[in-house]
Amino acid sequence: MTPYAQLEARFAELHQLGHAQAMLYWDEAVMMPPGGGQARGEALAALAALAHRTLTAPEAGALLDARRATPKRLNDWQRANLRAMRRLHIRASAVPEALVHAMQIATTACQQTWRVARAANDWDAVAKPLAEVVALAREEAAALGDTLKLDPYDALLDAYEEGTRADDVALLFEDLKDFLPDFTEKVLRRQSAPLPLEGPFPRENQRKLGEEMMRALGFDFTHGRLDVSHHPFCGGVPDDTRITTRYSEDDFLESLMAVLHETGHALYQQGLPADWRWQPVGDCLGAAVHESQSLFIEMQVSRGRAFMDFAAPHIRQHLDGRQGDAAWTADNLHAHSIQVRRGYIRVDADELTYPLHVILRFELERALISGELAWWTSRKPGTSARAISGFRPPATSRTGCMQDVHWFSGLFGYFPTYTLGALMAAQWYAAAAAAMPGLEAQIAAGDFAPLVGWLRREIHGRGQLKTARALLTEVTGAPLDPRYFKAHLERRYLGG
Amino acid sequence: MTPYAQLEARFAELHQLGHAQAMLYWDEAVMMPPGGGQARGEALAALAALAHRTLTAPEAGALLDARRATPKRLNDWQRANLRAMRRLHIRASAVPEALVHAMQIATTACQQTWRVARAANDWDAVAKPLAEVVALAREEAAALGDTLKLDPYDALLDAYEEGTRADDVALLFEDLKDFLPDFTEKVLRRQSAPLPLEGPFPRENQRKLGEEMMRALGFDFTHGRLDVSHHPFCGGVPDDTRITTRYSEDDFLESLMAVLHETGHALYQQGLPADWRWQPVGDCLGAAVHESQSLFIEMQVSRGRAFMDFAAPHIRQHLDGRQGDAAWTADNLHAHSIQVRRGYIRVDADELTYPLHVILRFELERALISGELAWWTSRKPGTSARAISGFRPPATSRTGCMQDVHWFSGLFGYFPTYTLGALMAAQWYAAAAAAMPGLEAQIAAGDFAPLVGWLRREIHGRGQLKTARALLTEVTGAPLDPRYFKAHLERRYLGG
Repeated sequence: MTPYAQLEARFAELHQLGHAQAMLYWDEAVMMPPGGGQARGEALAALAALAHRTLTAPEAGALLDARRATPKRLNDWQRANLRAMRRLHIRASAVPEALVHAMQIATTACQQTWRVARAANDWDAVAKPLAEVVALAREEAAALGDTLKLDPYDALLDAYEEGTRADDVALLFEDLKDFLPDFTEKVLRRQSAPLPLEGPFPRENQRKLGEEMMRALGFDFTHGRLDVSHHPFCGGVPDDTRITTRYSEDDFLESLMAVLHETGHALYQQGLPADWRWQPVGDCLGAAVHESQSLFIEMQVSRGRAFMDFAAPHIRQHLDGRQGDAAWTADNLHAHSIQVRRGYIRVDADELTYPLHVILRFELERALISGELAWWTSRKPGTSARAISGFRPPATSRTGCMQDVHWFSGLFGYFPTYTLGALMAAQWYAAAAAAMPGLEAQIAAGDFAPLVGWLRREIHGRGQLKTARALLTEVTGAPLDPRYFKAHLERRYLGG
Repeated sequence: MTPYAQLEARFAELHQLGHAQAMLYWDEAVMMPPGGGQARGEALAALAALAHRTLTAPEAGALLDARRATPKRLNDWQRANLRAMRRLHIRASAVPEALVHAMQIATTACQQTWRVARAANDWDAVAKPLAEVVALAREEAAALGDTLKLDPYDALLDAYEEGTRADDVALLFEDLKDFLPDFTEKVLRRQSAPLPLEGPFPRENQRKLGEEMMRALGFDFTHGRLDVSHHPFCGGVPDDTRITTRYSEDDFLESLMAVLHETGHALYQQGLPADWRWQPVGDCLGAAVHESQSLFIEMQVSRGRAFMDFAAPHIRQHLDGRQGDAAWTADNLHAHSIQVRRGYIRVDADELTYPLHVILRFELERALISGELAWWTSRKPGTSARAISGFRPPATSRTGCMQDVHWFSGLFGYFPTYTLGALMAAQWYAAAAAAMPGLEAQIAAGDFAPLVGWLRREIHGRGQLKTARALLTEVTGAPLDPRYFKAHLERRYLGG
């Protein structure tokens, strides 16, 4: 076997370890009985250690070097694959296996503690495990920063969004901080309350409606499932993609929009290039592109007025909404789907205030990792916090610092990708609309095949053939630019 | 670290790989969408190859040798652990990794094909994949036989039941072949039909009844689940033990007895020694002991008359059986639970004809592995086949050679353990009854704690501290003896 072929074999095995990890994560969130947690944590830690060993083995490094010295030409996909392999190898080699193992044990335990403590609003229960996770994350960031010659926070961010630096993010976020608070005020003053929708909405009916929408968008149920978990997510592997939602019997739109959001992630995963299933080049691009796909489907498509022309009859059918009743018209349903509300909870936020939640977390986690801020220190609310809350700080840990699982599970550097994804989604959508003049009419008619076909061709099916930046520039004609997002908000919330 | 401590670390990692494998198997049978099969097969093959590599690495062999040379004393558990490690290492080293990988791919694919083909009664669809599995199994048996200096079939059997040889099994089975056909005839002539139980029995009610029975027997739901699959099984790991059943709305006893059977397996798994969770010595003994635990709960306990005194009110409560109605009395329900019927399907067989199904398969698979019989050859029915069927051969592949998944998933040498387990269960039960004079009264009162406590103390909690043979002799005072089983049958089916 050539060095390249040996590398492919090694990375195929890594992919299979990733399959096991993905399924064990899904199972933990959806199926696992509570007492299974410790054993699961150990199993995940062992898999992480094995993957790390496979990735950092001296043979892997030697093969990567040998390949560099080999003159034989590779095609574009193979070259991109090699590049992705090298990146994974370098990042993994920067961190010792013991730290990988310790991090997995600590984060699984902390996350499991958090789940119970959050419900009980019990900050004291998580303070110590969180401190341990933060300490390990800082250790990891320092090690990565050393190897990559990056600021520690940048080294973490780079895992989720290659080439993106915190200073670039801060610039984009300053722009949004200038724009969003006043814009939100304006929308709040202008918007009127839609007619209320009377529940209860039985879970089973909501599930059927969700599955129908998934099917309409092209989700392939022979290669996927819809289940229930505490927080909606998309997991699994391309040939077995699993999304989750949660149901409230008072509010069906929350669950429906979660399903549509996760369907966006799932379409990306199911649409990855089948020829490169088990290689890094066949994997998704960074977290921001992933989020841009979910927000494309949720924010750009599903909360648009045209989508409700298609969806309203299905909603009425499954949820006993009466045809002709003003509350169940497409207009009123759409008004519900774009209501803006201040609130403490990120996952409940609308697309105007959501970025402010993210900016708040970005600023805090950057300071946490740099050491400027200790995790137990309090701090005066800044622009974003004030704009989100309407100047009243949250009264409890549950609605404040304990609301999100990210830090408790060791995810630092991830939060900004939500908003990078939102900006990107608006930019992709503008390109799609330009390429397909009949797009809105197709959406209104429930004909999503052209749109999803475009996504598959331009984004999903290209895996990691290009970097996220190169792909965005090629497809949309411009690098990431917040003007698309702002224009979208102006049009939707203030436009005609 | 001492060589022993290093070995413990290595085998703990193997245990964690086993956790991933167990959960992926469970998921495949219970959750996986049909299109996920190929990717799952590849993932399982990679895990099997990784486990094989961990087990057979030269370092592992060197550590085992080093430990042999080290004079420092180990305690009984550590010594037994080392013995179990050595056995696993030797068996794994006999088979090349490529064969392990190929076997996993071939069996996953064949099993998935079988699932569809069996429903369609389509022998042609499975003939080729099965031929491949048989060829690989023969290759594996030959390699194992070479290393272990055993006949190839014995080398396979030894994986499931250490130290047991096909000739010993054949002797025991000859005894049963002499006894069971006439005995079955006698019971069939004697038994009368119980009063019919009128369905339908809604699945949800059956599930609740099953969970209630599981709880009563001591199944720990914080460390386990009950789900639905095509064939009932017990999977998972000790801290997360998952059993399945299937429901027919016409016949609740089938599902209930499957739940009780799998609960027997689950109690064994959940009762393994917590101090040795991730080591081979903390694992279950062979397949026959495992089956003896399920049959202990199902055949010895739950189909006994005393159990129905406890269960009948619960059954009536969940399934709308009327108190006072003769069909729903404990006597009539018990009569249903011990009805004997001839039939083609092993999994539907009663405890009299079940061993004959097993003997038929044992004789066939022994001949298949030795090469005396090619898998496509037809053969005249022998004693067991005639006794099972009442002399009419099955008309279709589905009710004949395609009914069981075992060979299609590469399990050869496993079938005899079902009947070894049945013999053993009767022998354990005799010992338990002798040790606890009030046992039947406790069972009738639903007080299972003393019985399950006895099982935990004498069997479950001892892991692999002793061999199956040594444990059986120590606990029951005798090596495996079919007289206990025959005496049990005489008492239940002909006795007063």
